[in-house]
Amino acid sequence: MRGFLRRTPVEQAVAWIDQLAAPGIRETIPLAAACGRVLAGEVIAERNVPEFDRAAMDGIALRAADSTGAGDYNPLEFTLTGESLPGRPFAGSIGPHQAARIMTGAPIPTGADAVVPAEFVQFDGDRATITAASPQFKHVGRIGEDIRAGSQVLPDGRCLRPQDVGVIASLGIAEVAVIRRPRVRIVVTGNELAPPGRPKTDSQIYEANSAMLRGLIARDGGELDGCVHLRDERDLIRDTLAADQADIILVSGGSSVGAEDHAPGLVAELGELAIHGIAMRPSSPTGLGRIGATAVCLLPGNPVSCLCAYDFFAGRLLRRWGGRSPEWPYRRRRGALSQKIASAIGRVDYCRVCIDDEEIRPLALSGASILSSTTRADGFVIVPAGLEGYAAGTEVEALLYDGV
Amino acid sequence: MRGFLRRTPVEQAVAWIDQLAAPGIRETIPLAAACGRVLAGEVIAERNVPEFDRAAMDGIALRAADSTGAGDYNPLEFTLTGESLPGRPFAGSIGPHQAARIMTGAPIPTGADAVVPAEFVQFDGDRATITAASPQFKHVGRIGEDIRAGSQVLPDGRCLRPQDVGVIASLGIAEVAVIRRPRVRIVVTGNELAPPGRPKTDSQIYEANSAMLRGLIARDGGELDGCVHLRDERDLIRDTLAADQADIILVSGGSSVGAEDHAPGLVAELGELAIHGIAMRPSSPTGLGRIGATAVCLLPGNPVSCLCAYDFFAGRLLRRWGGRSPEWPYRRRRGALSQKIASAIGRVDYCRVCIDDEEIRPLALSGASILSSTTRADGFVIVPAGLEGYAAGTEVEALLYDGV
Repeated sequence: MRGFLRRTPVEQAVAWIDQLAAPGIRETIPLAAACGRVLAGEVIAERNVPEFDRAAMDGIALRAADSTGAGDYNPLEFTLTGESLPGRPFAGSIGPHQAARIMTGAPIPTGADAVVPAEFVQFDGDRATITAASPQFKHVGRIGEDIRAGSQVLPDGRCLRPQDVGVIASLGIAEVAVIRRPRVRIVVTGNELAPPGRPKTDSQIYEANSAMLRGLIARDGGELDGCVHLRDERDLIRDTLAADQADIILVSGGSSVGAEDHAPGLVAELGELAIHGIAMRPSSPTGLGRIGATAVCLLPGNPVSCLCAYDFFAGRLLRRWGGRSPEWPYRRRRGALSQKIASAIGRVDYCRVCIDDEEIRPLALSGASILSSTTRADGFVIVPAGLEGYAAGTEVEALLYDGV
Repeated sequence: MRGFLRRTPVEQAVAWIDQLAAPGIRETIPLAAACGRVLAGEVIAERNVPEFDRAAMDGIALRAADSTGAGDYNPLEFTLTGESLPGRPFAGSIGPHQAARIMTGAPIPTGADAVVPAEFVQFDGDRATITAASPQFKHVGRIGEDIRAGSQVLPDGRCLRPQDVGVIASLGIAEVAVIRRPRVRIVVTGNELAPPGRPKTDSQIYEANSAMLRGLIARDGGELDGCVHLRDERDLIRDTLAADQADIILVSGGSSVGAEDHAPGLVAELGELAIHGIAMRPSSPTGLGRIGATAVCLLPGNPVSCLCAYDFFAGRLLRRWGGRSPEWPYRRRRGALSQKIASAIGRVDYCRVCIDDEEIRPLALSGASILSSTTRADGFVIVPAGLEGYAAGTEVEALLYDGV
């Protein structure tokens, strides 16, 4: 019952996360599921897009040279010999003073090399009179104008935007190699915890961390590999940790140094407990380690500590594992503090704040058990270990919980 | 083949979207699926969290008055009569000069009203000596300290953060009422389009818009309700539009005024074509309307136009339908233009840009067909209808494609 003998600095715990190899395992998935996934390898175009010269306007396709000099005072007449539509090209060839009706996106017929837009064309049966000239390739989208065969279309490691997926589709590619998402197991321990939706005894509390962790895992590109709830029994927790095949295990609760805190010792016994006890508030009773190839994060049971420890360490681990940027997934905003934030030298503080116009206001009530503080807050300010806090009026950077 | 007689201003098209009722249909879903969903109705706490006074530290629980005056030079001795653990409370009552071992989160036993932390306690069998006093409720988390019964925990319309879901779980709630996501059907038309992964003819192109739209729909909280590909045949398109039961239909292609552009006339025939032709570039051949209760967006087939029209109109419609903020889902960044952007009075321009340090650089190649321009770009600048463009050096705001 005596607390940690020493606590690891936050940056050292982050460094331990960062020295773990990001395995970068490839898998091939249908393009329809690729948005938001991370490319495993660059995408090189194996073809031009488009693969033919195409009309960029509705109008007529003709030989550019034949249109030279056309104008309002010099209308030039052409014989219409056919029509080119998207997917239904003109089969013939355009000779001198001939033209074909053409629609945007349709292939330029053989012999033609320019388009005169419809607004400069008078149609009369099989005759078309133009009042504007088009130099060579005017209003023609050239072969490869979008993508040139052999070029790099998207770099390795790209987190795919909707339009990236569109570009891949335009190359005719229906499957894409991406980095497999880390499979993340949640293990919740605690005799006092009851699952929501069921009756509970007077001394129990409803278990909140797994519901929260599910959302965080999804946000950071992880794939939930099951969620188990265990009583604080050493053998039960041992067997679960030893048998697990997930890439990452998040243990919620029992992460400190008390008699019922079995997980840290079990990680040390089954593998390596690299970090235990971190110089921060909340989340001091956090542990990091591994069992075989599985990375293990021991997150405190107190819900704010759980959120904070997840965000400082586990989220970063998930994002790195999946080939994503390890940086905070939160938008930042600068502003002046309306009140001071007290901290202590040597300790990193995670201080929930509200944004009032341009001012950043620390929340008064911010204990590790007060999860509702993170729903009332707009975000948080991190006080680095080297500072005793911030005076009122200091300009600081807040990280905002909501996306945009 | 003559283009639009008149084009609707962008703001009028946006206003039409905004006057459509957001139906706000409720559905009840398991809490495990609630992250990122929008609350239909506020959440009111039906109980306190916690429902009992609990220890905020490991240590001993005692009567605060008995600890008065304790210090290094005045150690006070207590008889240990039991232990209170999380979920396993002490069944007895604490009398004068009695104490119980207690762990963080465990219920404070009857009779006790303070905790002395372990670091100020010497244990010796069933005796405990303290060297610090704890006034009443010191290191005690009071009933309702996190959430008070009867209080509003989360407001109506809240887009649920991971921690919000945790807070709901802590109230014992296992299901939550959220706004149903709009069911969105994609209808792709175009004889020239071949599906990726299959062979195509020389005059075909691979269909890219549906792959892109899937990602956009997911981003904006829509639920894909199927994706159909149709040839440019009026009866086929008519039957599909008439039979559809989706909340929103996105038609890609055939949205202009050409002979093969069937969709606008069909929307007018089956329902209302409210907007057709918009004063913007790209995406001018965009249509908005409805068939019965189904909203219909006619998006140009050109992929950049499709993306742009989706983002200006369809995305906003989806977000409003689902109870989300209608605003652009893009982060903003200000910077000076490295080169001028040319536009025309009366027309809104969507100009793809790269961010080079603090400078915003317009992409040279930016035709409506060049989808790869939206993968090379970091985002876009919107030139409002009232301007002829922006001079080099003007400070403008870019919207960034990537999230954080």
